[in-house]
Amino acid sequence: MTWDILNIIGTIAFAISGAFIAREEDYDLLGVYVLGFTTAFGGGLVRNLLIGLPIENIWKQENIFEIAFLGITIVFFLPNIWIGRLKKWVVFFDAIGLAAFAIQGANYAVSIEAPLIVVIMAATMTGAGGGMIRDIFAGRKPMIFHSEIYALWAAFAGIAIGLGAIRGPYATFFLLIVIVFLRMISVYFNWNLPHKHTK
Amino acid sequence: MTWDILNIIGTIAFAISGAFIAREEDYDLLGVYVLGFTTAFGGGLVRNLLIGLPIENIWKQENIFEIAFLGITIVFFLPNIWIGRLKKWVVFFDAIGLAAFAIQGANYAVSIEAPLIVVIMAATMTGAGGGMIRDIFAGRKPMIFHSEIYALWAAFAGIAIGLGAIRGPYATFFLLIVIVFLRMISVYFNWNLPHKHTK
Amino acid sequence: MTWDILNIIGTIAFAISGAFIAREEDYDLLGVYVLGFTTAFGGGLVRNLLIGLPIENIWKQENIFEIAFLGITIVFFLPNIWIGRLKKWVVFFDAIGLAAFAIQGANYAVSIEAPLIVVIMAATMTGAGGGMIRDIFAGRKPMIFHSEIYALWAAFAGIAIGLGAIRGPYATFFLLIVIVFLRMISVYFNWNLPHKHTK
Repeated sequence: MTWDILNIIGTIAFAISGAFIAREEDYDLLGVYVLGFTTAFGGGLVRNLLIGLPIENIWKQENIFEIAFLGITIVFFLPNIWIGRLKKWVVFFDAIGLAAFAIQGANYAVSIEAPLIVVIMAATMTGAGGGMIRDIFAGRKPMIFHSEIYALWAAFAGIAIGLGAIRGPYATFFLLIVIVFLRMISVYFNWNLPHKHTK
Repeated sequence: MTWDILNIIGTIAFAISGAFIAREEDYDLLGVYVLGFTTAFGGGLVRNLLIGLPIENIWKQENIFEIAFLGITIVFFLPNIWIGRLKKWVVFFDAIGLAAFAIQGANYAVSIEAPLIVVIMAATMTGAGGGMIRDIFAGRKPMIFHSEIYALWAAFAGIAIGLGAIRGPYATFFLLIVIVFLRMISVYFNWNLPHKHTK
Repeated sequence: MTWDILNIIGTIAFAISGAFIAREEDYDLLGVYVLGFTTAFGGGLVRNLLIGLPIENIWKQENIFEIAFLGITIVFFLPNIWIGRLKKWVVFFDAIGLAAFAIQGANYAVSIEAPLIVVIMAATMTGAGGGMIRDIFAGRKPMIFHSEIYALWAAFAGIAIGLGAIRGPYATFFLLIVIVFLRMISVYFNWNLPHKHTK
């Protein structure tokens, strides 16, 4: 149950973030759909790969395709006047996808009784996978490597779940909101981690 | 049977398209082989990943390596005078790979009784996988996102097969030719899908 | 036994090479960790994918995470004065990863009684996988396509193992050193394979 809801949230958030970026890059009609779908299901693909679920399960979750299709279509038909605000919305939907998939990765790692460091890595990489695929397909450097504090919040989900602090659907949903919130205020206040370079 | 032939056609078409692009990028002798092989078997890898076949099957199809090797070698030794025409041939072989793998993806999705939208997505993504890997390895934006009508023809294969209009090897081969033809005239006439941007 | 040692060597070498490149690209603190880890375990992921091992095994090898973490941390705290030498060390650690994973790929292909050409391809692609992921994530063209003789030495490992010239841990370790040595002198003397372009 929790799994399904996180999966739907993460997939749709990445679909929308992919469609936004496709509009920024001036991709054509189908390009917007393709980048939306590859981001959404690429995120799921990376997750399934990393946590050992059968990839072909992606094709079996029927309703999610229609919902992703709808989300991408809405983004495509947003009036141009919204374009100035696009960047902020990409970041917002990306944050939701990051949080949802990070929590899934962490939950899975806990379920196979992995040690804490593995839980943290699973959360970070599962959360970041969809965004990486999207950014690479759009010819950009993946956000995870340079953007305002990004991977840290996925790692934080790994720590919270790995230490057993989060159990059950309500706590999980609360954690999701906390991570999205932390990511958004990092961007809002332009927080950055130290770069070695500047030392 | 149909599967094997589509697989051989798609793999070799992508091998050749990878070798052409490696020459355009001035890669060295082995670079041409490596981009040829990664495009050919990367296309197969993406297809196997997406439709749930064992990846290691790639290594078991012996003859196809020799044929791909031969194709890449021929491209490498093409006289320089042909270089001006390279771009057009990349597009042609890419179209064949797109069509062959799109049909395989659609056939597979039909065989697991997936709904129409899933058949279309499977065709599009399976068809586009090899070209995406090639373009990313060559440091380019994947053709699928911006080029003259590209993904639409893969989606069209998905629709034709998903609606049950295509059955058996002859009809499949006919569909392959139709898709390659549609893709080539899209390029010839420089057809483009609407960009939202220009509205 | 040989497998485990090669795996540890390759994983750590790629972790360090990823961290070096992250510093060159001025990534932030977590960016250095993430590129280090994705290079290390991306290399393993590509290898597992290509040779058909379960991907989720990556999460079960506990100690290697701590060692990779330590290696990346050391790279992060290297004094700036070393930065001028970074490029050479990236190449060195990349060579170790290339050799270790190439040997694994070749050994695996031999174990399934693949023909020589497949052994060579498995060595080349398994060896090059980690470096490709790293270079793509860092927004660079993968080294394998243009750098001083690179893929040839991985292919050489495939030939040596495919012809049965290398058996047992001592010979394997010797081969590892030979490949790293050959790669390094290729860079040192700036050897290049013929480019068709210059003919």
